[in-house]
Amino acid sequence: MSNKERRILLIPKKIVTADDQNRVLKKHAVDITNGIISSIIPIEKVIKENYDEVYHAGHLTLIPGFIQTHVHLSQTLFRGLAEDLPLLDWLRLKIFPFENAHNKESLKVTAQLSINELLLGGTTTMLDMGTLRYGEVVLSEMISAGIRGFSGKCLMDLNDLYPSFKSSTKDEIKDMLNLAQSFHNSDDGRIRYSFSPRFVLSCSEILLKETKEMMKDFPGSIYHTHSSESKNEIEEVRKRFHKENIEYFDSIGVLDDHTMLAHCVHTSDNERKMLKNRNTRIAHCPSANLKLGSGIAPIPEYLKAGISVTLGADGAPCNNNLSIFNEMRLASLIQKPIHGTEVMDAKTIFRMATIEGAKALHLQDEIGSIEIGKKADLVLIDLDSYSNSYSDNEDAIYSDIVFSSTSENVKSVMIDGKWVVKEKISLIYDQGKLLSKGKEELYELLKRVKC
Amino acid sequence: MSNKERRILLIPKKIVTADDQNRVLKKHAVDITNGIISSIIPIEKVIKENYDEVYHAGHLTLIPGFIQTHVHLSQTLFRGLAEDLPLLDWLRLKIFPFENAHNKESLKVTAQLSINELLLGGTTTMLDMGTLRYGEVVLSEMISAGIRGFSGKCLMDLNDLYPSFKSSTKDEIKDMLNLAQSFHNSDDGRIRYSFSPRFVLSCSEILLKETKEMMKDFPGSIYHTHSSESKNEIEEVRKRFHKENIEYFDSIGVLDDHTMLAHCVHTSDNERKMLKNRNTRIAHCPSANLKLGSGIAPIPEYLKAGISVTLGADGAPCNNNLSIFNEMRLASLIQKPIHGTEVMDAKTIFRMATIEGAKALHLQDEIGSIEIGKKADLVLIDLDSYSNSYSDNEDAIYSDIVFSSTSENVKSVMIDGKWVVKEKISLIYDQGKLLSKGKEELYELLKRVKC
Repeated sequence: MSNKERRILLIPKKIVTADDQNRVLKKHAVDITNGIISSIIPIEKVIKENYDEVYHAGHLTLIPGFIQTHVHLSQTLFRGLAEDLPLLDWLRLKIFPFENAHNKESLKVTAQLSINELLLGGTTTMLDMGTLRYGEVVLSEMISAGIRGFSGKCLMDLNDLYPSFKSSTKDEIKDMLNLAQSFHNSDDGRIRYSFSPRFVLSCSEILLKETKEMMKDFPGSIYHTHSSESKNEIEEVRKRFHKENIEYFDSIGVLDDHTMLAHCVHTSDNERKMLKNRNTRIAHCPSANLKLGSGIAPIPEYLKAGISVTLGADGAPCNNNLSIFNEMRLASLIQKPIHGTEVMDAKTIFRMATIEGAKALHLQDEIGSIEIGKKADLVLIDLDSYSNSYSDNEDAIYSDIVFSSTSENVKSVMIDGKWVVKEKISLIYDQGKLLSKGKEELYELLKRVKC
Repeated sequence: MSNKERRILLIPKKIVTADDQNRVLKKHAVDITNGIISSIIPIEKVIKENYDEVYHAGHLTLIPGFIQTHVHLSQTLFRGLAEDLPLLDWLRLKIFPFENAHNKESLKVTAQLSINELLLGGTTTMLDMGTLRYGEVVLSEMISAGIRGFSGKCLMDLNDLYPSFKSSTKDEIKDMLNLAQSFHNSDDGRIRYSFSPRFVLSCSEILLKETKEMMKDFPGSIYHTHSSESKNEIEEVRKRFHKENIEYFDSIGVLDDHTMLAHCVHTSDNERKMLKNRNTRIAHCPSANLKLGSGIAPIPEYLKAGISVTLGADGAPCNNNLSIFNEMRLASLIQKPIHGTEVMDAKTIFRMATIEGAKALHLQDEIGSIEIGKKADLVLIDLDSYSNSYSDNEDAIYSDIVFSSTSENVKSVMIDGKWVVKEKISLIYDQGKLLSKGKEELYELLKRVKC
């Protein structure tokens, strides 16, 4: 850890712990020593002289950093350029040609724009899908920005939709091994490798299986793929394998508790049993599922069955944001007409975006709640804005976070006890320079697409 | 008009006109004389000396002020206090007891909090439902704040859900007449009266019919009610009248082109024909329809049938915001899985929230688009934020407004050529004082509910 014997004291209005008892603490301060939450102290016992930094945040609420379990950093540059299309057309006509046109410079700036947006919106940990080439660019940017998370090479050795955007099975395996060896568990474990076969239609069976096999040498890594997103995609999977998507994954042995399946919008009873029995994780991306016309995933049923469900913004071109707040609000709202107003209450949703996210990624001993011994991935949020509730009622605090806040309510963010956003200012990126670099690289990239 | 011979020149990056050709202008300035858009000038022809104020907004986009056709100002104070309930329970257990406990002071501050949030979020015109008592408080606040819109007494002479929250038919009629006479067309027509029978279940047939009759003396007023929102409500309407909700309204002669029905989530073919034939308007409130578990209104079908559909945030306790941006994004997203990804594109949605809103309220000659001769109800919005698109593509501008902006992107707002928000600062309300007054009045009100 880079900060030696550094002690920080945070004195917020309230602390929403996301611990097992869902405690909300008032009149407590959080002591952070060398990036670890070392104690949570009643305010009258605080000795301010003991700290290198004392942050008085009497009007702010301290919450765990948010965790997004499915994002596409490579796509952020394409926000707003792939509207009103269903999944397979969206990939074929827009996203594959765009991703295929990335060079190292454009990929670097899309990673920077993404991490910038995630951090300013209070997301401190994310699982990224990567793209076909230059995986080291994204992982290096994650290291230098200080965000926590997983990324890796997005694997594609088949591509009927846009044939030039793929690689050979052999090269895919070689390149992913190199990347995993270089980056997995780097920066004190803050950066981990995700083995990322894109989806069934872009991967040979050999590649899907070899990837799972290779993971065994990288404990703590995640097998990250898409499954059962749109009906057209599922129909195509059925044609090829005479099986449902998750049945196929199960038949080749890639489902276990280190597999994260994005979406799972349409699943059979049998597939749900498989998900439960294999303890496989689901990343729910409600905005993207609506925007691409895929449908509404039966999340309350998954939760009832004891299947792990967490949240992600997916890609900016199918959202069009990377805001956990949009996903939290929508994940609750869309289920109520179907399953009743009592489902997906704000507290449940808040836990999905924090501690349940940590559990899904096997990081629950390190992050996801505000408890002694955990890493200080923390967010100070203003819930006293004009658009939050005016009550001190304890239940309103979850509603304030989930239903009436946006990224704009996030004031300060730290990861491993290091500030990355303070008083709404990014300490990582110069906003003006980043934006103009983004526009410049997009302009050049779109010229390459036309070629 | 209060500002005499005052000339303002706005020089934005782009102008999204919302005119019939959906023109997006670059390198043009807007000349506002005495609150009216008097010319739109190529930038090279500008003579800056002619103006009292020249606003250089080279990084901002000028759009028409947003129009919300269904809101409940009286409920904003109750944000976050009525979660996870279906419509009739939400009214019975929470909203009716809360509204019933309003005194003039609490009603004033909830109106202020609402108008503050609407203005800061770029909404310049709204149609409010009012509450049972003290209608003059809300209308007076609208006058002094400078917002454009309609409010009135919410009519209730029946109430099985919470019997103490109603009034006699005679008093309802007398009070509404007094209010309409005092306020309709006040402040140069900026304030208009809305005749607001709450919904079928809270109004006698006499009250519903007399109200429509009375409107004839107040040209330009609106008949504002709820219809066909939740299945339980509709079932109750069927039991009482042996008709569908809109069939009942039609049978008593209250449907015409000055009637605004909030919701219309569940309607029969016959009812849709009535809506079309009567040229009756629908206010679509997607957040509230989801949050109260009511359902998803078949908006693309209404639009295809040529029925007027516009947008509103409804009440803060069923949303939990008053943001047009939430409603625009959601109004698009929720339809795509049902009707296909091509429906409810960003341009269509943007028009629903601007010029179509104006048409629905019969204000299209005054507001709703940026055209010469219209009133200067305008918003300067930052679409160059890190979370918008990085492209200069003209179509992306609608996507930026609808899918990737929030109220936070709104920088400056004027109504009738008078600034109400400038550089994100409200020129109407002191935020700190307003918030603390809101909390104080809510605290007192909740004590009255318990009594």
